[in-house]
This record gives sequence, C-alpha cells and structure tokens, in this order.
Amino acid sequence: MIVVVCLNPALDVTHHVPAVDWAGVNRPSAVHARPGGKGLNVARALHALGVDVLVVGLAGGITGAGLGAALGELGIPAAFTRIAGETRRTFTVVDGGGAVASFHEAGPGVGEQEFAEFRVRYAKALAGAAAVVLSGSLPPGRPAGTYATLIEAATAAGVPAVLDTHGEALLRGAAAGPAIVKPNLAELEALAGRRLSTAQGTDRTAVAAAASRLRTAGAQAVVASLGPEGLLAATGDGRWQARPPAAVAGNATGAGDAVAAALVHGLILGRPWDERLRHAVALGAATAAAPVAGEFSHADYASALSTVAVHRDEVR
Amino acid sequence: MIVVVCLNPALDVTHHVPAVDWAGVNRPSAVHARPGGKGLNVARALHALGVDVLVVGLAGGITGAGLGAALGELGIPAAFTRIAGETRRTFTVVDGGGAVASFHEAGPGVGEQEFAEFRVRYAKALAGAAAVVLSGSLPPGRPAGTYATLIEAATAAGVPAVLDTHGEALLRGAAAGPAIVKPNLAELEALAGRRLSTAQGTDRTAVAAAASRLRTAGAQAVVASLGPEGLLAATGDGRWQARPPAAVAGNATGAGDAVAAALVHGLILGRPWDERLRHAVALGAATAAAPVAGEFSHADYASALSTVAVHRDEVR
Repeated sequence: MIVVVCLNPALDVTHHVPAVDWAGVNRPSAVHARPGGKGLNVARALHALGVDVLVVGLAGGITGAGLGAALGELGIPAAFTRIAGETRRTFTVVDGGGAVASFHEAGPGVGEQEFAEFRVRYAKALAGAAAVVLSGSLPPGRPAGTYATLIEAATAAGVPAVLDTHGEALLRGAAAGPAIVKPNLAELEALAGRRLSTAQGTDRTAVAAAASRLRTAGAQAVVASLGPEGLLAATGDGRWQARPPAAVAGNATGAGDAVAAALVHGLILGRPWDERLRHAVALGAATAAAPVAGEFSHADYASALSTVAVHRDEVR
Repeated sequence: MIVVVCLNPALDVTHHVPAVDWAGVNRPSAVHARPGGKGLNVARALHALGVDVLVVGLAGGITGAGLGAALGELGIPAAFTRIAGETRRTFTVVDGGGAVASFHEAGPGVGEQEFAEFRVRYAKALAGAAAVVLSGSLPPGRPAGTYATLIEAATAAGVPAVLDTHGEALLRGAAAGPAIVKPNLAELEALAGRRLSTAQGTDRTAVAAAASRLRTAGAQAVVASLGPEGLLAATGDGRWQARPPAAVAGNATGAGDAVAAALVHGLILGRPWDERLRHAVALGAATAAAPVAGEFSHADYASALSTVAVHRDEVR
C-alpha cells in the first residue's frame, strides 16, 4: 500500500458555459467536480493503475466533507484528519469561445493540535506502507520543514518517500534524504534563481546541474519533469533522459502528478531506472492526452510505452 | 416543530475578488459558502427565530454531503434522503468594482424509488409537526402536482402547510388547500399572464385580483410579497396590506424567504393576521438590510416591528 499525503487538498469545480455573461446569471451546460490538489491527483492515478493507496491529510468544513464523499465514490480510501478550517475549492469557468477564468480559494490554516493528530494518523499509516508520496503545497503558515519532518519519520519506519513540492519546502525536504524528488522546470528555476530555458528550448545542461544540486542537498534521486520534453533524472545509477515521441496536445493539468505516481509505482515494483522513466513519461503523456484533467486511458498509456526514448547520459 | 421541505436545495458559494481578471487566475480575498435554495433560507430564518425545525428533502453527491455538514455546523437538524444525482451549487463572483457574475448549476433529477423513500421520511416527520413549509422549485422532471400531493398528505395528518413556489406547481399546490401560499409579484404576473405593475408602482387592485384567484383555486390564504412595497394578503379574515416604513437598501436575497418563515411562525403561534403580516414585513425588511444574504439582526427586526403600517382593506 502506498500512503499519499495531502496536507492542502482541494475540490476542483469546472463549469462549461457556451457563451459566458460576465455580468449576469449563467446556467452551465456541463459541470465537473473532482478531488484536486497534487496529492489527490497522484492518488487517483495510482488507484487507476490498480495500486492500493491510502490518502492521509487534513480536511475541514463543507468542502472537506464533500471531498471525503467524492473519494469514497471513487473507491479511494482516505483517512483525513478533520480540521476547523474550510478545505479550499478551485472554480474554473470555461467559455465556448475559449475564454477561461479561474478562482482559487486559499487553503485553511492548521492548528498545532490538529497537526499533532495528523502525525499520529500518519505514523499508523506508515506501519503498513510500501512507500509514501508527499505532494503539493503546505497549508498556509506551516513551517517549511514540515515535509522534511514527515520524510524523517518515513525513513525511521523504513518507508521510502517521494516528494513533489516547491521552494523552501522542497529544499528542506530534499535534505531529509527522500528516495526521489520530482521538481518541474518552474520549480527548478525558482531554486536556481534564473531561467533554465531559452527560446530554443530547455537548457538541459543547466537543468542537470540544478538537479545535481538537489542530490547533493540529500535527495537520493532527482527527476525533473520538463513537460512535453519529457524527464531528466539524476540518480545513484547515473543521469538519464526520457522523451515522449512528440509533444502531446491536450490537458497538461495532472500530467506531472501522473509522473510522480508512475515513479513511486516503479519504486515499489523495483523497476530499474530506465523502466521507471519509460512508464513515467508514458503515463504523463497519456494523462496530457485525456480530455478530463488528471485522467488517462489505459490504451494511450500502453501505446505510449513503446514510443518513449530513454537513454543514459555519458557524464564526463 | 416545523418541517421544512427542500426538494432542490443548493450550496451557495460567493467569491469576493478585488479586481477580477475574467481571463486568468483569481485569488478571492473572501469566500462565503452557505446552504441555499429557498427552503434552506426559510429553515435558517426559523432557526434564528428560535423555532425548532426539521429539514427534509433530497440531497446527493459531493455537494449533498457538504450541505449536510454545513447545516450540522449551523445546528439545524436535517434528514435528507440521499439521491444518486449531485446537489446543485451556485457560484457568485463579486468584483470590487461592482461587477457580479453568477453560475447556477442545474438541480439533479430524482428517481421514483428515491422519491418514494423521501415520502416515507416526510410522513414520519409530519407525525410530530406543527406546520410544514414547502418552498422553492421542484427537481427537474418532477410532476407539477408534487407539492399538491405533499400538501394533501399534510392535511390528512392535520398539519397546516405553507407553500412558496411558482408556475404550475403553485397553481396545483393551491388547489390542494394549503393554509397559506406566498407568491411574489413575478410569480403572480406569470400566473396572470400580464404585468401587474406600471412605472407608477404595483397595481394593487390587479395584485389583489390575482391573489383572490389563488384563493378561489383552493388556498386558504394568499400573501403576495411585493418587495419594498410590503405585503398584500387575501385571507378568510379579509384583505390586508402591510408596508415597511421605507424602501430598505440592502440585499433582497432571502427577504421573501424570511417573509415565508415569519408567516409560518405566526401561523403556529396563532397570531391574528395583522400581527402575522407585521412580523413578516419586519423580518423581510431586517433580512434585506443585512449585509449577508438571508441573515438578519434581531435589533433590526425588533425596531422594524414598530414601524410597519398594517391595515385591512374595506372591500366593497
């Protein structure tokens, strides 16, 4: 069983409105509501892969109750610690003409007692876990070392951790020695303090250098996700690159989370790095190709697998 | 205890955005979410008046679960029959510049088996009820005679009914002989098939005639709510008019529902018609004056009471 930690989950609501009236009453022709936030995307992808998951985290209020119900309907086991604050929603309006507006509520703060209750539940979950994924932003006001603390607890319990977050929480988390960290290009650029791509595309040498610095900081492996350009990995087994056959048109939302799901799946299956990366790129591409954000077709995933190009860099 | 029937409840979410970007990502500075739909507004007003209420109705999906949780937090007892469909949401975006856009999801359909389960629960609730309020729209696809059937069941159980709905459901419901129906001007106009107001204001003679027709159809009393112009009532104790002291600036959302709440409250207290109408106008005005839709200050309510003008028409 893989434990997925969602400290700041969300409910994502999308309204499709054929011709939106920004100054009146609209009646959406279609409405989609689904559990969101990076951690829940990872959990949904793992569940779709047939992996046993347990979601732990913090949820509260009307949206928190709705989130638990929604995961229940999807058959995804969740054991949220209830908090007094209100779990956030994102609300996206998609116009038939292509206009998109979205409204992102702030996540709720979390009290010390609430977080202590979560820690007890997390420790219990680790006892039966093959791996843990820690994904997404920290709740407002939580210290940047929060993920580091949770990774240390996992390590003490003999459970490998995969971390996907940004900024100081990523840097501090990497120092706690997780099995894998998975930054994207924007997150690496924020750490590097400069652009790592040009009009000609991603500067892979600079990305590799930034990834190596996260390894030096403590992460056992760093997998940088470069969107349609695939993955670049700095691992204990060398540096790897994996590319999809072609840029996939579609919905990139959740594709990075599918990559994280595939990486932790490969980790618990003991796949070698080339196979882990092949599956991760294929699942990311299949997710980007799906019409609904964060979902994928198994046929797309299977067909993408054979077209991913993986090679190991000769590092001088 | 007053039973409040909510067949098509909603969760109302409002996002306040200082300077909205209709083509980008917005982070609301304030978010309000509350149980909505006319029936739930009535239940909240009655609860604020200190009256025991029991909400019965139909709720489902993520929003249905959230709604139950929200009512629980407000201390309002609710016994929703769970349905497979997803309870509707309304999203309203309020811009600092005054622009307002709203997005109203359609309510869910209800299966015959689901409605039969609700009927069982409704019959049980009637056994302990002093009155029942039936308020708001019917779920899509429910027959127009639905409220009539529920009113007949209440009458058979010796429980007086107050009906607040529109169109064919109102007409059919009135024919079932409820104690009070409470149409607003637009609803009376829809039944009359013509405007009942002019640039000079409401045509009270025409409103009275339309109200009398609903009495002839079967309603024991008809109370027409005319917004800032107060109430006009056709009752077994004659025709009455009740006016607030002055048009109240504020939020009219839920004011009509506060009127319905006050009317049923007056009914179970056995207040004479002049007092029922005085309280109804005062509670409606206090609700319109409150900054948050559907709430009121008890001080506003008390001070409005003394300023309402009520008189009985001399009908020739």
